[in-house]
Amino acid sequence: MVVILKNHADKDKVENLTNWLQSQKLMINEVKGEYQTILGLIGDTSRVDIDLIQSLDIVEDVKRISEPYKCANRNFHPDDTVIDVEGYKIGGGNFQFFAGPCSVESREQIIGIAKEVKAAGANILRGGAFKPRTSPYAFQGMRAEGLELLLEAKKATGMPIVTEIMDASHIPLFENVDIIQVGARNMQNFELLKELGHLDKPIFLKRGLSSTLQELLMSAEYIMAGGNEKVILCERGIRTFETATRNTLDISAVPLLKEKSHLPVVVDPSHASGIARLVEPMAYAAAACGADGLMIEVHNDPAKALCDGPQALTPPQFAKVVKGVENIRNHIK
Amino acid sequence: MVVILKNHADKDKVENLTNWLQSQKLMINEVKGEYQTILGLIGDTSRVDIDLIQSLDIVEDVKRISEPYKCANRNFHPDDTVIDVEGYKIGGGNFQFFAGPCSVESREQIIGIAKEVKAAGANILRGGAFKPRTSPYAFQGMRAEGLELLLEAKKATGMPIVTEIMDASHIPLFENVDIIQVGARNMQNFELLKELGHLDKPIFLKRGLSSTLQELLMSAEYIMAGGNEKVILCERGIRTFETATRNTLDISAVPLLKEKSHLPVVVDPSHASGIARLVEPMAYAAAACGADGLMIEVHNDPAKALCDGPQALTPPQFAKVVKGVENIRNHIK
Amino acid sequence: MVVILKNHADKDKVENLTNWLQSQKLMINEVKGEYQTILGLIGDTSRVDIDLIQSLDIVEDVKRISEPYKCANRNFHPDDTVIDVEGYKIGGGNFQFFAGPCSVESREQIIGIAKEVKAAGANILRGGAFKPRTSPYAFQGMRAEGLELLLEAKKATGMPIVTEIMDASHIPLFENVDIIQVGARNMQNFELLKELGHLDKPIFLKRGLSSTLQELLMSAEYIMAGGNEKVILCERGIRTFETATRNTLDISAVPLLKEKSHLPVVVDPSHASGIARLVEPMAYAAAACGADGLMIEVHNDPAKALCDGPQALTPPQFAKVVKGVENIRNHIK
Amino acid sequence: MVVILKNHADKDKVENLTNWLQSQKLMINEVKGEYQTILGLIGDTSRVDIDLIQSLDIVEDVKRISEPYKCANRNFHPDDTVIDVEGYKIGGGNFQFFAGPCSVESREQIIGIAKEVKAAGANILRGGAFKPRTSPYAFQGMRAEGLELLLEAKKATGMPIVTEIMDASHIPLFENVDIIQVGARNMQNFELLKELGHLDKPIFLKRGLSSTLQELLMSAEYIMAGGNEKVILCERGIRTFETATRNTLDISAVPLLKEKSHLPVVVDPSHASGIARLVEPMAYAAAACGADGLMIEVHNDPAKALCDGPQALTPPQFAKVVKGVENIRNHIK
Repeated sequence: MVVILKNHADKDKVENLTNWLQSQKLMINEVKGEYQTILGLIGDTSRVDIDLIQSLDIVEDVKRISEPYKCANRNFHPDDTVIDVEGYKIGGGNFQFFAGPCSVESREQIIGIAKEVKAAGANILRGGAFKPRTSPYAFQGMRAEGLELLLEAKKATGMPIVTEIMDASHIPLFENVDIIQVGARNMQNFELLKELGHLDKPIFLKRGLSSTLQELLMSAEYIMAGGNEKVILCERGIRTFETATRNTLDISAVPLLKEKSHLPVVVDPSHASGIARLVEPMAYAAAACGADGLMIEVHNDPAKALCDGPQALTPPQFAKVVKGVENIRNHIK
Repeated sequence: MVVILKNHADKDKVENLTNWLQSQKLMINEVKGEYQTILGLIGDTSRVDIDLIQSLDIVEDVKRISEPYKCANRNFHPDDTVIDVEGYKIGGGNFQFFAGPCSVESREQIIGIAKEVKAAGANILRGGAFKPRTSPYAFQGMRAEGLELLLEAKKATGMPIVTEIMDASHIPLFENVDIIQVGARNMQNFELLKELGHLDKPIFLKRGLSSTLQELLMSAEYIMAGGNEKVILCERGIRTFETATRNTLDISAVPLLKEKSHLPVVVDPSHASGIARLVEPMAYAAAACGADGLMIEVHNDPAKALCDGPQALTPPQFAKVVKGVENIRNHIK
Repeated sequence: MVVILKNHADKDKVENLTNWLQSQKLMINEVKGEYQTILGLIGDTSRVDIDLIQSLDIVEDVKRISEPYKCANRNFHPDDTVIDVEGYKIGGGNFQFFAGPCSVESREQIIGIAKEVKAAGANILRGGAFKPRTSPYAFQGMRAEGLELLLEAKKATGMPIVTEIMDASHIPLFENVDIIQVGARNMQNFELLKELGHLDKPIFLKRGLSSTLQELLMSAEYIMAGGNEKVILCERGIRTFETATRNTLDISAVPLLKEKSHLPVVVDPSHASGIARLVEPMAYAAAACGADGLMIEVHNDPAKALCDGPQALTPPQFAKVVKGVENIRNHIK
Repeated sequence: MVVILKNHADKDKVENLTNWLQSQKLMINEVKGEYQTILGLIGDTSRVDIDLIQSLDIVEDVKRISEPYKCANRNFHPDDTVIDVEGYKIGGGNFQFFAGPCSVESREQIIGIAKEVKAAGANILRGGAFKPRTSPYAFQGMRAEGLELLLEAKKATGMPIVTEIMDASHIPLFENVDIIQVGARNMQNFELLKELGHLDKPIFLKRGLSSTLQELLMSAEYIMAGGNEKVILCERGIRTFETATRNTLDISAVPLLKEKSHLPVVVDPSHASGIARLVEPMAYAAAACGADGLMIEVHNDPAKALCDGPQALTPPQFAKVVKGVENIRNHIK
């Protein structure tokens, strides 16, 4: 961390600051220039509140040089985290398909799709029970009943399940869920993240629509700082000026997140574009640049899906994507 | 709502669709062109799930013509909503200053600032007890204890208080709070919004960092659909490519929100730019274009604030803003 | 400028770098930490190519502390630049209205509007002769003939004129134009900027749709580095995710540009939102926060304008804005 | 195109409008609702000026249903355009590498790199002679002399060359250049595009930093409307809120552009991220999702490059990318 002091800053205040910084176990090197004095802080600055220092009236500017997250930081944990979900491994060279419908709609539907995506090559079943919808008048999901149906589909197929949580008070309902998903709109619901940090269960953390990669990693840090180190990061498209797609898939997030962090990185091409016919090429792009998995919406009758239908694949389309991704993965090794 | 059907769409499916739309009490006018058929839907389309129609395989595109919100819509409620908070009115030509520190830090601090901002012209005291911070290592607020101190400051000064809620489970703690604030990061925390819809208490709803005006109004609709019509909208800056300011104040949101909705619109120039010396000009801009109030961070010692310090004004700076705003408001009437 | 060297950087290469930096008349202060060495550069770094240093394999990162522009920088020119256009002053407390139609369409039209906007309080006539249009099939302006008609309108009313140039080869046609405008799409047409730098004529430089304030000032620097110091900066809205307005007016650009630079700052509320009924409130906001002028589209028959019609005011609407702005300016002094 | 008329629009004005539309060879279907009348226009609307119609006071809104470009539109030209450059084909299943340094710096440098990239698998040599730089103080390229050196490199290696033009007046200098590049900052330099439309030479058109795909296609249309149908589209990253990369590669642009247009689509992973170590994964992503080529910066001594160094690969790194891309392309067929 570099602290740039204001010209003619009060000497006593500067001394107070340097004393305080040293009490935080930081070493300080001072560069005195004609117009500016720069303090170079050396040590673990991840727990230093940058806003606090910025607010001092003797400070012109503060610039971080190292990252403000530690648990999620590859510098401190060079080896890939591998998350094991009932024998299916994610990360560290292990690739998984998370597939299923946008929403759970009925027992028949979810068990039917589960069987189809399993046959096509998916190992983990996705399906929304609690649905975050922009409009209060849109279908809000089957909620607790939907969770029950997902567990039935797990029993019928042996597939572990991943499904979204929308409020910390619902955690008890998710006791038998294998992976808890935090949606893009809740990526900075810090009270929820803290509670999830006390569980011993993988958390599938989706990037917020306008969150930077650093903010995503800080949200992972919230969970990990509580003791739960099983976090799966998910790139699902960001909000930009472009209107041709619902969101813009930030494909460079994949290699960058894997460089900065040891956590597995999964791509959701269905939500990233909101257009079913882009799922196949985006899945190939994600696999080609090193993603650890793909979350893909699959529906046995996309035209009838109660939400997000236009982005869902049919099971045969999904099977084609699985084969294409396996081909690409075999040839980039 | 206009539904554009695909070329050569299956006739039976089209008939199914038109029957279903009519069952939703919508009138349909059909335009048959050489290449496309267009269905014009007339009636209350605010409760129609656009995604559901979009997902049908016979549908090329769906375009909304009227807005998907109803309770918040000025078309259906032409008169300004006026919210009365212990005798202080917001909206309908009534202007209020919401002022106070970013965070409650101590009894002495919050009562001291409350007295100063009241003397300077503020009627409503703001102060954070629960603080959403990007880093788990940053100060998270005094939480329940902070709420107690705010209530003491209210007793000492007679000022009603506004403070942020971060989780629906905290609602009982907010029983004596006058206005509950929903922060930008929770604007689409729909479970929280639904719970707030069951209260009889004003909700101060901040626009999300990358939320459109329509999404802000849909979040207001979540609260209002539950029965709570006392919603105050707040523009506090959006995330753009520009890095000179923390966020970009979208000043055109003020007249646009007031045109589309009958709800009061308040501007927060402190968070919008994150730079204290921009608060005064941004406050004047907001007043000049018709805002119903301003939320401004004030600190008796900005250099010591535990968070967001660089954007807080001193009480004398705040007093200057209050006078300037009153001048402008007197001369645009 | 702060250069952060890589851990274990080659000593000889570091010495080469420091020698070269010293040859650029920069003083260097070195901070050696356990993991990193930081070089603080003191002196005029505005002419240092940051990319060149960044590219060295011994360099981890480079951060600018002072701004990379000098002619446009208020630090080096504390007094406001005042530009005199045939007796009408812009900047330094002098406020001007630039008004007129989007496009010049006929002699009758441009002289008619000129008279009307002059009567309403405008001093400088705007009108497009060369029109940048997204579609090659849209009206491209009357071009050279339009310039002739603008000069006739000047003769008829005594108003100096401002009009847009689209290519450096057209400069001779602009000999009698009083102020040459560079449009948003050409803000980084560097060949054009260089040529305009050799003229002795004010340049009205519009901010690009996705240009940062620093890039705008760097484009001003291109013109000023050539010797032409008469640059007027114009905020006209930036491209964001919001679709309710054509662009998002970045109102904080006004005080920020005036803080960073001594050049006058004008706001164009017509293009910023693309909606005529937002021009009045946006004009008031701009005046309230310190703009030096307003560029406003006015049309005697907005419904017939050949381009950009929906954002133009009628002369009576414009006259109302002039009075409102004068009121506000009288009361913020 | 759908025109939504205002409630109670003047009947005579509506008749004038419908007569005019019919004179443009458009068929009109009218839907009269209780509150709104909708005109559905059928025929070639690509040449209709949407702004003109929008500006009429009887019009509430206008929505395009078909695209406003025709020459570049795949609907009217279903087969892929294949561009032949001295025997090297681009598009229609033919893939090319465009490689070379950011800037031409010397004869030795450009011929040296040309030989190395050719040996590694590139067929077309890139190199900047005219350089658009944000700062007037940064290296501006060798200009005309740089073009001469590129032609020498062509003679020495047989590789056709692609290089950027910055002003229409330079066209004569580009007579022997094989492909003329239009940079991102000039994508809407319409005067330049029109001039390039009169040449019989491929144009390599880079997407603007904040241009939509539709705007890119409209700029291609400017060139094609002039008669030059040899346009190569290039995705090179867009400007977003994310600061971890210089720009955000919009990978979904590849399949979307190929769906909307018959023109070849090339990706520039070097400029998209500005980070050399992301070039390899981004190149693989681009190849995996169907790009027709890659433009990659290669430098024999990246640490010495006069500009954009941090994003250039060494020849061995480039050779690895070529092999990886070929592997992927073999396995997605």
